[in-house]
Amino acid sequence: MSRLRNDTFLRALLREPTDYTPLWLMRQAGRYLPEYCETRRRAGSFLDLCKSPALACEVTLQPLARYDLDAAILFSDILTVPDAMGLGLYFAEGEGPRFERPLRSEWEIRNLTAPDPHAELQYVMDAVSEIRRALDGSVPLIGFSGSPWTLACYMVEGGSSSDYRQIKTLAYSRPDLLHHILGVTADAVVAYLNAQIESGAQAAMVFDSWGGVLSEAAYHEFSLPYLKRVVDGLIREREDRRVPSIVFTKGGGLWLESIAAIGADAVGLDWTMDIGRARTLVGDRVALQGNLDPSILFAPPEVVAAEARRVLDAYGPHPGHVFNLGHGISQFTPPESVSALVETVHTHSRKIRSQG
Amino acid sequence: MSRLRNDTFLRALLREPTDYTPLWLMRQAGRYLPEYCETRRRAGSFLDLCKSPALACEVTLQPLARYDLDAAILFSDILTVPDAMGLGLYFAEGEGPRFERPLRSEWEIRNLTAPDPHAELQYVMDAVSEIRRALDGSVPLIGFSGSPWTLACYMVEGGSSSDYRQIKTLAYSRPDLLHHILGVTADAVVAYLNAQIESGAQAAMVFDSWGGVLSEAAYHEFSLPYLKRVVDGLIREREDRRVPSIVFTKGGGLWLESIAAIGADAVGLDWTMDIGRARTLVGDRVALQGNLDPSILFAPPEVVAAEARRVLDAYGPHPGHVFNLGHGISQFTPPESVSALVETVHTHSRKIRSQG
Repeated sequence: MSRLRNDTFLRALLREPTDYTPLWLMRQAGRYLPEYCETRRRAGSFLDLCKSPALACEVTLQPLARYDLDAAILFSDILTVPDAMGLGLYFAEGEGPRFERPLRSEWEIRNLTAPDPHAELQYVMDAVSEIRRALDGSVPLIGFSGSPWTLACYMVEGGSSSDYRQIKTLAYSRPDLLHHILGVTADAVVAYLNAQIESGAQAAMVFDSWGGVLSEAAYHEFSLPYLKRVVDGLIREREDRRVPSIVFTKGGGLWLESIAAIGADAVGLDWTMDIGRARTLVGDRVALQGNLDPSILFAPPEVVAAEARRVLDAYGPHPGHVFNLGHGISQFTPPESVSALVETVHTHSRKIRSQG
Repeated sequence: MSRLRNDTFLRALLREPTDYTPLWLMRQAGRYLPEYCETRRRAGSFLDLCKSPALACEVTLQPLARYDLDAAILFSDILTVPDAMGLGLYFAEGEGPRFERPLRSEWEIRNLTAPDPHAELQYVMDAVSEIRRALDGSVPLIGFSGSPWTLACYMVEGGSSSDYRQIKTLAYSRPDLLHHILGVTADAVVAYLNAQIESGAQAAMVFDSWGGVLSEAAYHEFSLPYLKRVVDGLIREREDRRVPSIVFTKGGGLWLESIAAIGADAVGLDWTMDIGRARTLVGDRVALQGNLDPSILFAPPEVVAAEARRVLDAYGPHPGHVFNLGHGISQFTPPESVSALVETVHTHSRKIRSQG
């Protein structure tokens, strides 16, 4: 593998001093980029795009060609693991992801097994290897997975949900069965992320997109322990470097301190909590990643710049900040907003450091 | 007016000692009750039901006939105020509320005026008077309104939204126009709630259902100051009694302390924050209302009882707790779950007091 020329992102995740605040954007390879839409049209469906290592590699690199981003993230879907468990992932036109065979009966739950990442999920590992080769040491590559709780939501609901009625009914009526799903899924996520790391991923991020729909007690019973189990199981070092881990519970601001205590190197923040306050709560125990409201990118460039500076100023001159949005970038984002954002984050964070 | 025989709810809101913890349920008159569905069928549409004082009164009383609840809440829609402003509220089958004429251009925004609550909204005042008469002093009646921010979301988006793109674009591109909408709407909400109080409402609740989609800074610019303006404008006393106010920002747990400081008597909590922790943060500055996850009502009665006890125990023996769900009751709730809940809250809270 080529030597990594820009390791700012990896060092920031380990709270080491960096010359500026690195940034990448959740869902940075996505529909706001015309070149992405072009590749997706060629691929046929979204799933075909995910399952073709060559095309997944192509779209992963697209935002890096346009913008001076400090990391690439594997292009894939968060539901590849349950798909490989046999639930039958599909995308209905104009709707979100759905499963043909959601978990509904006890025998389906008892029969669940963690898939071999080098069998049904080999296409993901091939994409990781191909992207690493294509990046050629320019910036690090992030591997990722959904969290056990978030995957279980989709597996039990059969798709996204407005009220999480099926999984919460399970949680409160048959917690034993839900813990079984979560345990098998956590093992699957560990194997999946470790296979990505062995294939070349240089950091690992776990997306707990639906943790925020739980009560404080239920979050600490059904989501956080399984996030910890995933983090505990990850390969710590590879290619003579630490492989940093990031956990992100959307809507998890109220539980920041317990999330920061599970052993991950960094915690992702959505936009609902001031990042300066978050930093005060976690101190230098973890790095923080975030946290601009992605809707700010609908505003004129000078507003984007002002709001990005506000986030950087709130975090202050300490090491350990990776700039990001608080959620995936919207398909309606004007690409020039991203230019203003990248430019501002790099310039203004150098200025803060020179003054700090 | 008849003397109020059960004022436990009003006294709890004022942090006065009570023999037990009073409870009511957000959306307690709703589709989980077969008798509600029956009345609604008779009414024709949901809006016809809201606009008929006799039928609104009938459904308001239905949950009280079944359960030993400590308050009634006016049956109405949160979008009556913008409807009276001329935006044209309608309900498309199987969808949420929509406006025929959402606010899109600057002149529409500049032309916005607060409606006279005794003109276009007289049907609400008639419902309030009729419900008060029908309650005949059994329990107090809560009046309510949407918050200025939440109403503005619907007025600008034209309906509910998954990303709040229109209103956030306005917030970050033309904050002056958004502040104009919020100012006019706050005045309208004050006049509307005061007319409800003059017609017989004995407490006033402001639902900020969408405050939680904002960043910390934006919440403190676009939602909280207008909640305060509403609370400041409310009639404080009527029929020789204090008229308590409750503000509820769904997803506002991170901002609890600033919400508790605006002068409302009580703050509503969704289920994401442990109510014991919330009580530690606010002390006895405000009463707290909440905060069971409504999904718990899908579980068997013994689980409902155990989870209700958990909320009561977390709050402890202090005065100032009104038990409620953290969000409106789901249409899929089995009515017998509500029986278990009401019974447990009344019995267990007496026990806590006798031990405390």
